[in-house]
Amino acid sequence: MVDPLLAAPLTDAACMARALQWAALGRLTTFPNPRVGCVIVRDGRIVGEGWHQKAGEPHAEVHALRAAGAAVRGATVYVTLEPCSHQGRTPPCADALIAAQPARVVVAMLDPNPLVAGRGVAALEAAGIAVETGLLEASARRLNRGFLSRMERGRPFVTLKLGASLDGRTAMASGQSQWITSEAARADVHRLRAEAGAVLTTSATVLADDPQLSVRAPVATARQPDRIVLDSQARVAASARVWAPGARRLWLCGVEPMQRPADVDVLPVATTADGHLDLGAALAGLGAAGVNHVLVESGSRFAGVMLRSGLVDELVLYLAPSLLGDQARGLASLPGLDTLDQRIALRYTDVRQIGPDLKITAVLQET
Amino acid sequence: MVDPLLAAPLTDAACMARALQWAALGRLTTFPNPRVGCVIVRDGRIVGEGWHQKAGEPHAEVHALRAAGAAVRGATVYVTLEPCSHQGRTPPCADALIAAQPARVVVAMLDPNPLVAGRGVAALEAAGIAVETGLLEASARRLNRGFLSRMERGRPFVTLKLGASLDGRTAMASGQSQWITSEAARADVHRLRAEAGAVLTTSATVLADDPQLSVRAPVATARQPDRIVLDSQARVAASARVWAPGARRLWLCGVEPMQRPADVDVLPVATTADGHLDLGAALAGLGAAGVNHVLVESGSRFAGVMLRSGLVDELVLYLAPSLLGDQARGLASLPGLDTLDQRIALRYTDVRQIGPDLKITAVLQET
Repeated sequence: MVDPLLAAPLTDAACMARALQWAALGRLTTFPNPRVGCVIVRDGRIVGEGWHQKAGEPHAEVHALRAAGAAVRGATVYVTLEPCSHQGRTPPCADALIAAQPARVVVAMLDPNPLVAGRGVAALEAAGIAVETGLLEASARRLNRGFLSRMERGRPFVTLKLGASLDGRTAMASGQSQWITSEAARADVHRLRAEAGAVLTTSATVLADDPQLSVRAPVATARQPDRIVLDSQARVAASARVWAPGARRLWLCGVEPMQRPADVDVLPVATTADGHLDLGAALAGLGAAGVNHVLVESGSRFAGVMLRSGLVDELVLYLAPSLLGDQARGLASLPGLDTLDQRIALRYTDVRQIGPDLKITAVLQET
Repeated sequence: MVDPLLAAPLTDAACMARALQWAALGRLTTFPNPRVGCVIVRDGRIVGEGWHQKAGEPHAEVHALRAAGAAVRGATVYVTLEPCSHQGRTPPCADALIAAQPARVVVAMLDPNPLVAGRGVAALEAAGIAVETGLLEASARRLNRGFLSRMERGRPFVTLKLGASLDGRTAMASGQSQWITSEAARADVHRLRAEAGAVLTTSATVLADDPQLSVRAPVATARQPDRIVLDSQARVAASARVWAPGARRLWLCGVEPMQRPADVDVLPVATTADGHLDLGAALAGLGAAGVNHVLVESGSRFAGVMLRSGLVDELVLYLAPSLLGDQARGLASLPGLDTLDQRIALRYTDVRQIGPDLKITAVLQET
């Protein structure tokens, strides 16, 4: 079968789109690094390609340069993120590119990492290589919105996941709540967890439901997401399933825990006057711990607190095809919302059917 | 421009699909008659086509026969509903077809009208014309689901329209409710009204909001939908805007009204022990009055009553991209719903974006 992208003319946009496709292959594995892809073209032919697979392993450019060999001299290199200029766990990619002597480097976006931030491009230009930036930048930003959030705002990108009936109910008045959404929707949540790379919940949810917060079949991932528990009073027991091995576990506490489960990282977080964790400080702590993107899975009370805090970037809502009636429990507790102009405003970005349910994705809007 | 259906081979399915397209042109005008289209093909060419436009005017077959003239002899006639066999306001189409002597008639579905119900097909066959039925029957049934409901169940097809925030709220706790959904969604409701051909509300809504229930710009229709008010105590005043001229108006009352607004038809309806109108009897009365399809626009209390009654066939829900919180008023009042297995079960049939809002269509499922 002919690859439609290879069959199409190798315009700059087509090559960068292909580099973005390579980059996306790293979406479950590059944490805390960004997802990056690279395509090298000479004389109208692709001579090398690659993508960053895992932190500590070679960057996308290195894979592509190795594949291209001597052919890179005089070629055009397409890379979805500015080549790094600093010595990290691997040597600077800008140096490797300069040594390989391409004629031109096209970059989708500058790296907001303060260790790079334009220095990669400057080094290439100083070496006489023509550099262009900004091609398909919006797509490149979307692919790394978690990494960008951490670099630009010092905190992870926050996706809040909720599930409800079509009339916005999560449980009967009695509390009965199992199986409102379908098995297909629950499997899709595992996909969300794997892509976010970190799952955050509260001690209230752990104490009530003892969730595992892991990625399980039918979704497969080479890396289990970080499990993060907000726990102002450090109430979660060492026996909680969320502390089971197999992933990084972060316990965000407002007090020093009496005991510390094996291999669980405790992050002290400031508390507010009413004894709750300061959510801005908690997210800043997660950013410092290298968390790019966090999926929040909690009850309706904490969902409401998060929504009111202004810290939610995106909402994913699974809507089951059923009505539970207005006696049933609501989706998000938003006390103090009295007038319509105080509502939480969203913009739909995606809607699709997952089994019998709808999956609605929306971004939070400034109001 | 070449019509893709004409350019395609004239298979039976292609011809019937085309007849259905003609039929759909009557969707705002044929009430109380069904929407019917007809295509006549001879020697691989379309020689006549037509559709039923308005009750009292010629049926689809007559338009197509006139267009075909002598060419219909030996041709194949595709018609989306069994040709009528009875003298109504126009002569029987079966007789016109027999006189025209086609070789074959293909019918999408039998007419459930007890005055026809197979007699049209039998008359054609008795005259030596080959008849096939059932081609694209599901599409034909969907197009006339209102007419079929009235014929088969003696009551209109019932679509319940609701609008809410994404968390299923219709108003703030204070009652503030204006503009939760967008102008685009409100325009789409006018389209729903025009297609249903009848709008039903309650005296509570009329007394609270004094709605017009008319089809207004940007939607245009040659026929304003019937306006139907359920009013057990006959409380609606003669000055209510719903009684303004320009459409058939039906006042379903449990008691004899003290006064009767000009040209408003009063339909007496039996009441239940608690003083409410018997909804089954009300819908049967509407069926007897020739109402095929009714769009219910009411408050959340009556929406809940309708949903619990089992009389709702379809739900159309406009979801605004906002969250109002669980203090706000719910979408559907369903008292007595205590366990999940009592929930109202739906199946999504359509989802689309209307301006900033989602429009979700679902059919009620047996539970």
